[in-house]
Amino acid sequence: MTDRVTQSLLDDKARILERLMELVRQPSVSADPAFAEGMAGARALLMRRLHEAGLQAVQELEAPGGHAAVYAEWLGAPGRPTLLIYGHYDVQPPDPLAAWHSPPFAPEIRDGRLYGRGASDTKATVTIAIEAIAACLAAGVCPVNVKLFLEGEEEVGSPSLRPLIAANRERLQADAVLSADGSRASVRLPTISTGTRGMAKMEMRLSTARKDLHSGRYGGAARNALHEMARLVASLHDDEGRILVPGFLDDVRPLSERDRADAAELAADDADFYEGFGGSPYGDPDFTLRERLTLRPTIEVNGLWGGYQGAGSKTVIPCEAQAKITMRLAPGQDPARAAGAVKAHLLARCPAGVSLDFQALQGQSAASTLEDEHPLLVAAEKVMGEIFGRRPVRARGGGTLPITSVFKETLGIDTLRFAFGMPDEDVHAPNEFFRLSSLEEGLRAWSMMLAELGRLKSEDFAPFRRAVG
Amino acid sequence: MTDRVTQSLLDDKARILERLMELVRQPSVSADPAFAEGMAGARALLMRRLHEAGLQAVQELEAPGGHAAVYAEWLGAPGRPTLLIYGHYDVQPPDPLAAWHSPPFAPEIRDGRLYGRGASDTKATVTIAIEAIAACLAAGVCPVNVKLFLEGEEEVGSPSLRPLIAANRERLQADAVLSADGSRASVRLPTISTGTRGMAKMEMRLSTARKDLHSGRYGGAARNALHEMARLVASLHDDEGRILVPGFLDDVRPLSERDRADAAELAADDADFYEGFGGSPYGDPDFTLRERLTLRPTIEVNGLWGGYQGAGSKTVIPCEAQAKITMRLAPGQDPARAAGAVKAHLLARCPAGVSLDFQALQGQSAASTLEDEHPLLVAAEKVMGEIFGRRPVRARGGGTLPITSVFKETLGIDTLRFAFGMPDEDVHAPNEFFRLSSLEEGLRAWSMMLAELGRLKSEDFAPFRRAVG
Repeated sequence: MTDRVTQSLLDDKARILERLMELVRQPSVSADPAFAEGMAGARALLMRRLHEAGLQAVQELEAPGGHAAVYAEWLGAPGRPTLLIYGHYDVQPPDPLAAWHSPPFAPEIRDGRLYGRGASDTKATVTIAIEAIAACLAAGVCPVNVKLFLEGEEEVGSPSLRPLIAANRERLQADAVLSADGSRASVRLPTISTGTRGMAKMEMRLSTARKDLHSGRYGGAARNALHEMARLVASLHDDEGRILVPGFLDDVRPLSERDRADAAELAADDADFYEGFGGSPYGDPDFTLRERLTLRPTIEVNGLWGGYQGAGSKTVIPCEAQAKITMRLAPGQDPARAAGAVKAHLLARCPAGVSLDFQALQGQSAASTLEDEHPLLVAAEKVMGEIFGRRPVRARGGGTLPITSVFKETLGIDTLRFAFGMPDEDVHAPNEFFRLSSLEEGLRAWSMMLAELGRLKSEDFAPFRRAVG
Repeated sequence: MTDRVTQSLLDDKARILERLMELVRQPSVSADPAFAEGMAGARALLMRRLHEAGLQAVQELEAPGGHAAVYAEWLGAPGRPTLLIYGHYDVQPPDPLAAWHSPPFAPEIRDGRLYGRGASDTKATVTIAIEAIAACLAAGVCPVNVKLFLEGEEEVGSPSLRPLIAANRERLQADAVLSADGSRASVRLPTISTGTRGMAKMEMRLSTARKDLHSGRYGGAARNALHEMARLVASLHDDEGRILVPGFLDDVRPLSERDRADAAELAADDADFYEGFGGSPYGDPDFTLRERLTLRPTIEVNGLWGGYQGAGSKTVIPCEAQAKITMRLAPGQDPARAAGAVKAHLLARCPAGVSLDFQALQGQSAASTLEDEHPLLVAAEKVMGEIFGRRPVRARGGGTLPITSVFKETLGIDTLRFAFGMPDEDVHAPNEFFRLSSLEEGLRAWSMMLAELGRLKSEDFAPFRRAVG
């Protein structure tokens, strides 16, 4: 059953595709100042369309020293939920240019796919979201209140996001965030993103002496900082990949039957997975591949160095070694407690004569989780079930979405990623594309989602909102 | 009892000190082309003195692309041993200049010490050797045949040494090498250097995948090259510092009672040793500090790196890690066999999916050892015993002297280091100095040594010479 608004969207699909291509044509690369014009062009295009579609308060939100966000709102549904609709108009740099089969900013349709930088990440879903709202307004009214917030710095780590929210806190108050960023978890199955892993970060510096030592004069009687660092790093996991840090796993929420069932549905072929990067099977054997990748925490040394790295050899006993560590956190883990367990484990294993200093790094966040009864999740499951004729699979992501934490921490609200890119669409790489078949699915889904959420009241979200300072 | 030649040397001490100071005044820094004039000045000064002293065939031996060596000979003692007297006239760069209390190339005497770059390493002992020969010739005859070979590239690793020997093989034939380079092993005790540790070197590259991986997408299911490298490095030693590599120690000659007694005499205070560099006690507890430093082999990782080393963090699972390894070898060990044992150990510990490649590095050499009955050792022990009134201590060095291997491999002959610098004279550092008291000891010792060796015949060295291609 397709309602009137949805049908109007589908009827208008060709024009919507044109609008998407026009947006992809804007070279809105946030990382490189040379693309300032493309950034401005994308903002102008979006604001023109938002205005034309009947949204209000259309404006740029200035990000001092950074790229402005595009904002627009429609608040004509009193008592209904207010959704903060998040997206970004910036894209990754297109390098290496020579690897593209058609120019990155000259979108081209081949074999049912739209090729171009930003097509999948995330201009397609941003277009879908805008057009779904536009179609509602064209039909008279939007079922929910919406606040569109399209940032211009997602691809450079959203440095202005917190200041922007702080400066526009009242304006951005909402009941929940519906995000147009991200991608579906599977090309085979309908999925709903219910959360991602969190992140803890630190770096450490190990020292064994005041100075590097000559191995001829001290060799055999002086500790080598690299040997000590190796011993510490080797103590983090067993041979198979189980984490050996006492206390680190204590707070991890045990997997539910539903968790395991969903993970099983999404199971990829292990051999394919490992062939993809030339690796071989590895990881905690008590969990399946998909569980290890999305539901379990990790501790990774991302960089390690010390001593001589030049040509030839240098007969030195290095007195210092450094390492950078990040942890992907599972639901239940607190970033500070998790990092604290790793620190305590490492310090406990330092013999006399070895000193170890830690530095925290920016970017800690707990795993994000949309609770089972959250209205966004309930509505999305219903909508996806209707469109695909089966219960969608709940898919947690293995990565970390800083914006999800930012919205929770600053506005106290949860985020549902409701994006229609696919996981294989070469985002951040040459020849990024977006499946045209996803355009229809996305339009249908966003339209139905707005309608579904319009059956609720703002207060239905109250139990899931967190008071924030 | 002081013979006539020795007495004449002691009587001439003031003039010899002046000659040494003149030599130190030449800024003969081999590492820096800006000092070419100082190099030439040192060569000219040495050749003038050698000529004046009555040596023959005084000349520069050209080292194409490098610094010429200075050569001179006196072969008027038929049937007597022929000694190749090795030394070097180049010095380390004087940086940091600001740390010197008097200019490095303006030698100055303070508190019984001659300060200046190269004073201890090794212009003093070179001067002593030349003056000892000169005094013999002034008295009529030298007790042995001598071939002086003073290279100009010792401080840059002697890159021309092998080509120079190859180009002058006949000229340089001798029964043994008496080296004016090095230093005594103790400021308290008379010592004789009986050998040094050898060296094996390699670097290795470990790989776990074709590319670095995103820790959000692969974390928990992909091997991390740094974790694997850490595991390998940690497997080389136990917690206390014992080497755990099967076979590595098999060829190490067990310590004799004399070895242990000599090491005990030279024992430094452990606490002082560790305070010197801010370390704490470490190493194979089955051996004393001195034994660990000089008589036992080592395996050291001199450099290790992989992954992200920049500012902040990068959530990468590195696919590659590299390490540089050097081994100090004890008597009995073959460099290739020792390195082979380490390689085999590491390869055996690589799980499926980890590949490890080794590259050999230039500069392998076995430990050098002067055998108990070698005429150089017997003569030196007698001379030192007479001068110091006690049996000298045999001291092996923990470092590696490439030239010792070079002479053994190219000319088939052994080397005795017979130098009179002390181990605390800040060689290679600011404010290098040489104790004036060592000048008299050195002159006496070299004079008596030449006389002692003059009692032997060339053929006495035959059992210790090795035929070389």
